[in-house]
Amino acid sequence: MSLFDEARAALKRLPGLGFRSAERIALHLLVEHPENLPALLTVLAEAAQKITRCRQCGNLAEGEALCPVCADERRDTARVCVVEQVPDLMAIERAGTYSGSYHVLHGRLSPIRGVGPEQLNFAALKTRLAEGGIEEIILALANDIEGEATCHYIREMIMKNFPQVKISRIGFGLPSGATLNYTDPATLKNALESRRSF
Amino acid sequence: MSLFDEARAALKRLPGLGFRSAERIALHLLVEHPENLPALLTVLAEAAQKITRCRQCGNLAEGEALCPVCADERRDTARVCVVEQVPDLMAIERAGTYSGSYHVLHGRLSPIRGVGPEQLNFAALKTRLAEGGIEEIILALANDIEGEATCHYIREMIMKNFPQVKISRIGFGLPSGATLNYTDPATLKNALESRRSF
Repeated sequence: MSLFDEARAALKRLPGLGFRSAERIALHLLVEHPENLPALLTVLAEAAQKITRCRQCGNLAEGEALCPVCADERRDTARVCVVEQVPDLMAIERAGTYSGSYHVLHGRLSPIRGVGPEQLNFAALKTRLAEGGIEEIILALANDIEGEATCHYIREMIMKNFPQVKISRIGFGLPSGATLNYTDPATLKNALESRRSF
Repeated sequence: MSLFDEARAALKRLPGLGFRSAERIALHLLVEHPENLPALLTVLAEAAQKITRCRQCGNLAEGEALCPVCADERRDTARVCVVEQVPDLMAIERAGTYSGSYHVLHGRLSPIRGVGPEQLNFAALKTRLAEGGIEEIILALANDIEGEATCHYIREMIMKNFPQVKISRIGFGLPSGATLNYTDPATLKNALESRRSF
């Protein structure tokens, strides 16, 4: 295998890249614009070395520091939004409407894939709850079976140990811009169930 | 800007990657599977250092060596297929029906983008023609205005300097598997013009 083939194969192993897109990137970096490669290698190596998990919430952090959300004193620490993955947190941050803090589970309960509570970032959540000051836990997990199961697990845990904490779950229904005739039955069912007075 | 944002921005500059795909790859390499990163950085750095252009045909080569096609003594050196880019050569090689050699122009004539004959790999092609032994030049350039212009330029150059060399151009028409009702008028025109007795 030539070095070019090896580079393409390594790129193809990245998520979302197929044969063609990996080939295109390999040609870009190795043939057409090799001047762009050193900066990319440097920033990836440096980021890999310094990026850690926030010891408080599990979000991305740098070195020993708290993540930008936990470090921001203007954020409302009485509200904690529980998400599965860092990209979920990023998506909520981009929406720009949430001023509370987060807790990243780094997965969800999935007996079929052998993911139990010990594999997830639950211990740090319990510690935060035990420290006090949290008034509401907002569950922002996926709207599917495993997300549902994880929500139930968290609710049980909180109701048993911290009964004063309010628990809520994000709303389900029609996405923004959706029309009814192209909406699937499960979403319509959710939308009807979560109707509000108008 | 955080290190993660910098890494994502550097990935987003790669061809074919948008915000989401760059974020997905950054998370993969920096958070979910950091164990995969060193091998990727190593293979890219090593490939960038060693990959060169074949001094004979312009294809990818390693170090001072000729490219695998030029180095292969079983290839027919009397036939030279002229292509615009290395991926075009790779596509023809994957088709597995061509046993001649290649010449990679690394672009095509484009007055509007300031690409003249001096910017392309024409000098090496003339040298190869002058050395003798080439019986046929097969033009495998794009079926558009700039590809057409580049073909005309090469034909002029060969007819003037090497009149004994046969010049051909790859066929145009319906792609494999195509139906007529979904084929555009320009392709149908090409297909009718290049009809063969049957």
